[in-house]
Amino acid sequence: MIVYLNGQYLPIEEAKISVLDRGFIFGDAVYEVWRLVDGRLFESDKHLARLASGLHDVQITAPAEAQKAKLHEVADRLWKENGMKGEGSLFLEMSRGVAPRAHQYPKPPVPPTVFLMASPFTPPEELRAKGAGVILIDDVRWKRCNVKTTQLLPNVMAKQQAFENDCLDAIFIRDGIVTETSHANVMAVADGTLWTHPIDGSVLPGVTRDVVLELAKKLGVKVREEGMTVDAFRKADEVFLAGTLSDVMPIVKVDGKQVGAGKPGPVSVKLFKALRERLDALRH
Amino acid sequence: MIVYLNGQYLPIEEAKISVLDRGFIFGDAVYEVWRLVDGRLFESDKHLARLASGLHDVQITAPAEAQKAKLHEVADRLWKENGMKGEGSLFLEMSRGVAPRAHQYPKPPVPPTVFLMASPFTPPEELRAKGAGVILIDDVRWKRCNVKTTQLLPNVMAKQQAFENDCLDAIFIRDGIVTETSHANVMAVADGTLWTHPIDGSVLPGVTRDVVLELAKKLGVKVREEGMTVDAFRKADEVFLAGTLSDVMPIVKVDGKQVGAGKPGPVSVKLFKALRERLDALRH
Repeated sequence: MIVYLNGQYLPIEEAKISVLDRGFIFGDAVYEVWRLVDGRLFESDKHLARLASGLHDVQITAPAEAQKAKLHEVADRLWKENGMKGEGSLFLEMSRGVAPRAHQYPKPPVPPTVFLMASPFTPPEELRAKGAGVILIDDVRWKRCNVKTTQLLPNVMAKQQAFENDCLDAIFIRDGIVTETSHANVMAVADGTLWTHPIDGSVLPGVTRDVVLELAKKLGVKVREEGMTVDAFRKADEVFLAGTLSDVMPIVKVDGKQVGAGKPGPVSVKLFKALRERLDALRH
Repeated sequence: MIVYLNGQYLPIEEAKISVLDRGFIFGDAVYEVWRLVDGRLFESDKHLARLASGLHDVQITAPAEAQKAKLHEVADRLWKENGMKGEGSLFLEMSRGVAPRAHQYPKPPVPPTVFLMASPFTPPEELRAKGAGVILIDDVRWKRCNVKTTQLLPNVMAKQQAFENDCLDAIFIRDGIVTETSHANVMAVADGTLWTHPIDGSVLPGVTRDVVLELAKKLGVKVREEGMTVDAFRKADEVFLAGTLSDVMPIVKVDGKQVGAGKPGPVSVKLFKALRERLDALRH
């Protein structure tokens, strides 16, 4: 696999960073993941806007690769160099760069480390058809989950706990309210209304979340951006995840208990179809 | 500078890790910092116990370097290879290793990445003599600050904010209670009693904290391990930081306002002297 690191295209085995990279030493980095369809970036502008906002929040000066022209150039070349076809994902990480270890930002600033990697991706249609299971766990994360940083150890541990329980993912509960999963937003349908947590420090402003809410409104589904209590959530008619590599993923079991009818519900199926059409519109 | 990376001793410029290292991608790593005096590790056993506990908490299998014999062997060689004298620090980081990007732990497990670096250190005696300033900021960190992981972006941003305010450090306030700083524990003296936050998920079980509390008891200072409100803290007679590279650092200004008499107080001075004696006991 050929990846991009600080201006160079090179085999992943040769893509190395200094041990003093602040991404490694402090988790001092932001990242993004785009969906690729026939080599084209899905909702590129929305991801770029979130990236710009994240870089601003953590005060890393935006490198050239945070600009659309350069990003698309790199994505195109990675797609071609790796002979990719169909669907894929593009991962980008930007750290504050390499400097002697000290908490405060390097002064003068050093160039950010920029890493991009395109990988083949096969949407999990078999699992989607029957629906997945999740566990609920305590949300121990920090208060700035709206910024897409590499402060991901709690997410890593949550996902691992889900796997050990034969589940796809773990849903975080903060002060009795459903927030999101280790890498996707959570949506629930109750009495015909689509609920999802509002954007604040406890959830990521997901691009797929945004698209799904837009599609729901278009399809006449009432949307409520409001925190849902665990009790209300357990009684929901439908639950699904919304994320770049999840699309709309129906959840049919929460902590081993059946959700609604125990199979993907009508709103989830309708929204997945509408989202899939948006993705397919990128095909040549 | 010669550093140690995965069994090799090499110049820092050549010490490189894969971009897929989970320390870089997820902040999936723990670390430690020891004080070195004449090449000897201060309170080595306490640091090793905390490291073992952290590795256990995040479920990384302890590598050989987490054992005393191997750690001291590496520390000795780094000290000698770098021609170090007097005082220094030893930084260690262990990540979950290198694997294709996926939140859950690699299965089967991969070898952890092990990085060790010894650096010269000059204790800041000039600043200590007059005392330092701090700012108070909202504690946005996660709920497992008792584990010494590289989830350090909030600490990085707090320290930076302190620097921009011409202060040494920032003290985190969680729900109206003083927790700790970006890299040290906080202690306050009020009515002759030494207060510090108890060990729970909001503070690190600091080795220096532990030693200072032990010394305080020996010297007849009453100790109270209890959260202090910001209001009580602002009225404290003395405030100081306790940390591996802070020793006992008197704080004479909080948010620009004078603490006590505006100079290092008698309890702080007494405890620093006792701690310095413990450090000096390591000299050859």
